[in-house]
Amino acid sequence: MSSSNTLRLVFPQWQGGNNAPYYFGAQLLNWLAPAPQGVVEHVDVEQPTEQPLKNENGLMGRQALLNQLKDARAKIDKHAPDSIVILGGDCLVDLAPFAYLNEKYDGELAVLWVDAHPDILTPEQFEHAHAQVLGNLLGHGDSDFTAHVKQPLKPENVCYLGVNDATEWEQQRMQTLGLKNISPTQLAEEGSEPLLAWFKATGAKHLAIHLDLDVLDPNLFRGLLFANTDYAEGALDGIAQGKLSIRQVVDALADVSKVSQVVGLGITEHLPWDALALKQMMEQLPLIGVTH
Amino acid sequence: MSSSNTLRLVFPQWQGGNNAPYYFGAQLLNWLAPAPQGVVEHVDVEQPTEQPLKNENGLMGRQALLNQLKDARAKIDKHAPDSIVILGGDCLVDLAPFAYLNEKYDGELAVLWVDAHPDILTPEQFEHAHAQVLGNLLGHGDSDFTAHVKQPLKPENVCYLGVNDATEWEQQRMQTLGLKNISPTQLAEEGSEPLLAWFKATGAKHLAIHLDLDVLDPNLFRGLLFANTDYAEGALDGIAQGKLSIRQVVDALADVSKVSQVVGLGITEHLPWDALALKQMMEQLPLIGVTH
Repeated sequence: MSSSNTLRLVFPQWQGGNNAPYYFGAQLLNWLAPAPQGVVEHVDVEQPTEQPLKNENGLMGRQALLNQLKDARAKIDKHAPDSIVILGGDCLVDLAPFAYLNEKYDGELAVLWVDAHPDILTPEQFEHAHAQVLGNLLGHGDSDFTAHVKQPLKPENVCYLGVNDATEWEQQRMQTLGLKNISPTQLAEEGSEPLLAWFKATGAKHLAIHLDLDVLDPNLFRGLLFANTDYAEGALDGIAQGKLSIRQVVDALADVSKVSQVVGLGITEHLPWDALALKQMMEQLPLIGVTH
Repeated sequence: MSSSNTLRLVFPQWQGGNNAPYYFGAQLLNWLAPAPQGVVEHVDVEQPTEQPLKNENGLMGRQALLNQLKDARAKIDKHAPDSIVILGGDCLVDLAPFAYLNEKYDGELAVLWVDAHPDILTPEQFEHAHAQVLGNLLGHGDSDFTAHVKQPLKPENVCYLGVNDATEWEQQRMQTLGLKNISPTQLAEEGSEPLLAWFKATGAKHLAIHLDLDVLDPNLFRGLLFANTDYAEGALDGIAQGKLSIRQVVDALADVSKVSQVVGLGITEHLPWDALALKQMMEQLPLIGVTH
């Protein structure tokens, strides 16, 4: 695989989590990323405004999300890349790229979903589309979105890394769908072995990796939803938090990349509260601020 | 004052605190800052390498720091600005700009030093020059540095905001020098009144503000030395930590800027651990990392 045929998609989608700072998080992620080896495309995403998003038939920002989904797919098809790096944005950014990759690799794509959450809800459970993206890629959920998945993923080709404290509904659904999870505890105890065993069992050659940064422990890495110091105590109770370290994630992905051809990598859910606070502080300071 | 005669000095000095990530912190601070209204100059600072700094006659990296001091002054003199924004880098970055401003304003410059620490040590107490910069501006400390301060600040024209838990030596020295401090407790109880009273009492018109970000509470803003999650428990015991919120700092500076002409603003000691960790993580990931 020539890295020159890797497309980089900068995708500052924020409507899927209804959280404006995803937009800024994507810009910063892009600034921090290694220089691209190939073509870069920016998906058209409206900047957040003071205007709140609306629930459109069960999903916040439905039309904006669908527009972005189509724009992302058009920009991918334009280059027909062998592989794609996606810099999000909320988790939903991986819908168009992973759907494309599974078509390109004849329905045999393997997907490692590195996340604290299973992302298989539907509009019946939750109005935020970013929590539904893997469900969509498997062919389930809202038909406006599954319509863009011509070739659903095989459930046995999907493995989670880092899901923990799933709700009862999610646990049942994971079982019904036949989705495997390597929990933080299992990773800590067994290392990469279960991951390599899963990949071997799929028979797949090509692997796409969804890396939701919220798989990381928010006490160690603070650019995450759960590490916002403005939230009231207990405001996020009942929502699973990540338990992995960066070192664990890097090691696991390095190991699996030795036995696979990594053709997709999406990095999502970056919410750099401190950088945003510093930016907003400077805008208000004398001499440097915009009003002075 | 025309803001078009404000020089912006990007100054990624890291040797003054012997801490390589100040270099990265300055780049990110510059990226986050509002667009400059006037000329921008970048002080020449060698990128950190694996080679450790040396203690040169009592100060870590003495020669590099002196070279940067001269380069900063030359770049200031080239433009002869009315006012200067400095984006550091460690605290020492404000030495050349504040010395210049006090000369320009005939020795009558007032300085608000927003910091958890008094920065008046000498090489006898500490080998890091960033903890000595205000001492130098007052004409005290290492002669290699005071030689670049032609017009020392008047002690009564200097006020701290946020110093707390100063050591016994520092407290005594602050008293000897006659330096006023508005502590976090006093700010919380009395608001900006003591600050405005101090500025009025100086009789000064022009104000330079040193904003060491470590005046902020590291539990609220994590781009700080004390918020590094890699440090062993207790590693920074005995070193004062900031206690202010961004809101408090913004409000205090807004208030004082209404009664003064702000001609200097230095923002220093930005250590964005999470952004740095994310950058280094991406460098090691498959498909996007530099080794792939």
